[in-house]
Amino acid sequence: MSEEFIQSRQNPRVKMLASLREKSARRKLGLFAVEGLRELSRCVELRGVEEIYFCPELFKSPEHSDFISALRNKKSISLCRLSESAFEKVSNRDGSDGLIGISRQWECGLADLPLPSGKPSTILVADAIEKPGNLGAILRSADSSGADAVILTNPVCDIFNPAVVRASQGALFSIPVAISTPEETAEWLSEKGIESIGAHLGAKDFIWNADFTKSSAIVVGCESSGLGGDWSSRLGRIVKIPMSGVSDSMNVGIAAAIFLYEAMRQKRAFTESSAQNLR
Amino acid sequence: MSEEFIQSRQNPRVKMLASLREKSARRKLGLFAVEGLRELSRCVELRGVEEIYFCPELFKSPEHSDFISALRNKKSISLCRLSESAFEKVSNRDGSDGLIGISRQWECGLADLPLPSGKPSTILVADAIEKPGNLGAILRSADSSGADAVILTNPVCDIFNPAVVRASQGALFSIPVAISTPEETAEWLSEKGIESIGAHLGAKDFIWNADFTKSSAIVVGCESSGLGGDWSSRLGRIVKIPMSGVSDSMNVGIAAAIFLYEAMRQKRAFTESSAQNLR
Repeated sequence: MSEEFIQSRQNPRVKMLASLREKSARRKLGLFAVEGLRELSRCVELRGVEEIYFCPELFKSPEHSDFISALRNKKSISLCRLSESAFEKVSNRDGSDGLIGISRQWECGLADLPLPSGKPSTILVADAIEKPGNLGAILRSADSSGADAVILTNPVCDIFNPAVVRASQGALFSIPVAISTPEETAEWLSEKGIESIGAHLGAKDFIWNADFTKSSAIVVGCESSGLGGDWSSRLGRIVKIPMSGVSDSMNVGIAAAIFLYEAMRQKRAFTESSAQNLR
Repeated sequence: MSEEFIQSRQNPRVKMLASLREKSARRKLGLFAVEGLRELSRCVELRGVEEIYFCPELFKSPEHSDFISALRNKKSISLCRLSESAFEKVSNRDGSDGLIGISRQWECGLADLPLPSGKPSTILVADAIEKPGNLGAILRSADSSGADAVILTNPVCDIFNPAVVRASQGALFSIPVAISTPEETAEWLSEKGIESIGAHLGAKDFIWNADFTKSSAIVVGCESSGLGGDWSSRLGRIVKIPMSGVSDSMNVGIAAAIFLYEAMRQKRAFTESSAQNLR
């Protein structure tokens, strides 16, 4: 595969890559950009990357050169070198490490969501998330806590936004994600026999009273307004994370992580006690 | 108390207020700025505020006018109106709500740290935190989870930084904070009979194996390097939050929240079971 070297900021490929900053261009082309060694290598491994643009002058470690060398040997991905000036135009970061790739968006329908068979599922439903940093953190916590999927309802923020890709640290490529409406999601959960448990500060029960050893969907909402009207009538039950101190709200990324790790704790304790009973 | 109206960006009081963006000026004057209705009203209530500067043209709700009117009636805090231009110079936020106050820094020595008597303490120790957003989130989680204090060791970020005040949403004014070295902190914890439990991805035991019903200090480190060498030899024990998925690290604010709420869960379960045993 021939390796181009683009020096001009006016080159059409450079312009296309820079345009992926905008949701409209991403949607039209069905593509998105993945920047940085960590995120890009995870995308290559887990989802596939169509083209990689690199600027050796900006590489931050020998691993960056090794990454490109390995891909060059495999000849599986189109590589293109950019001048510093051209790279600056396409980069979404201060202090970029000189690596950016283009990956193809995938379908995020509920029907495509794989669920584990033979064991209870844990799903995180996040409603009306606005900030890319929060959405990225939610994906990261869902992935690291071993949740099976994330469903986004009423999404304000696009999951293929460069800031989400970055904040998720590649978890976007690992955890299955679906996008749907509260109505369809509630129906789908009900069909699958998954109880929806909403995080709601107005709940009487605490998070620790919910049973996450059965298949369950944790439903969290955006910080400012909590869970919206679309969800309130569709929840199996609501529980709250208790709040002391001055604060009257909790960041949705923090709340999601506390719920997800409580689910992990309960499931592990349940598995351990089941194993003991069998002895 | 007379109420001044300052229109010039060159006014010395405006210049002084703007200078509080810099750590050196904050330290020299022993003051810091608190911006926004939520943070400022919590600071007035919990720590006291020396002066408040306001710009009615920027108020975002009737509550803003009510806040100033109530203070005007009480005559306890010096009020000063600023022009939009002058306010813009002192504001640290995009879309400011026209309220900024000056508060006095307080002592953050270990010796001043109040501990509860007659019940086990939960303390969060955060080492080498760099990002104001993470430090603010840690203060907020510690406060909302009912922790007794936060100790900062090797701090990179100043707690009186405007971004910390904002991210803490006023928790800085509620939760007691001390700043010290790992060595002194470890000695102090030992003297008080508080076990230090480090969050460390290299630990064999899980977080759920630690006993937080006894007095304990949860020690978390910054994301990039984990717990530093200063702490590793000084910990009573280490435990980890299990990680699935692609990620090999956890944001320190998320990790702190998971630990703090696990401590709250254990303490509540312990209190409930003790109460049942007494019946």
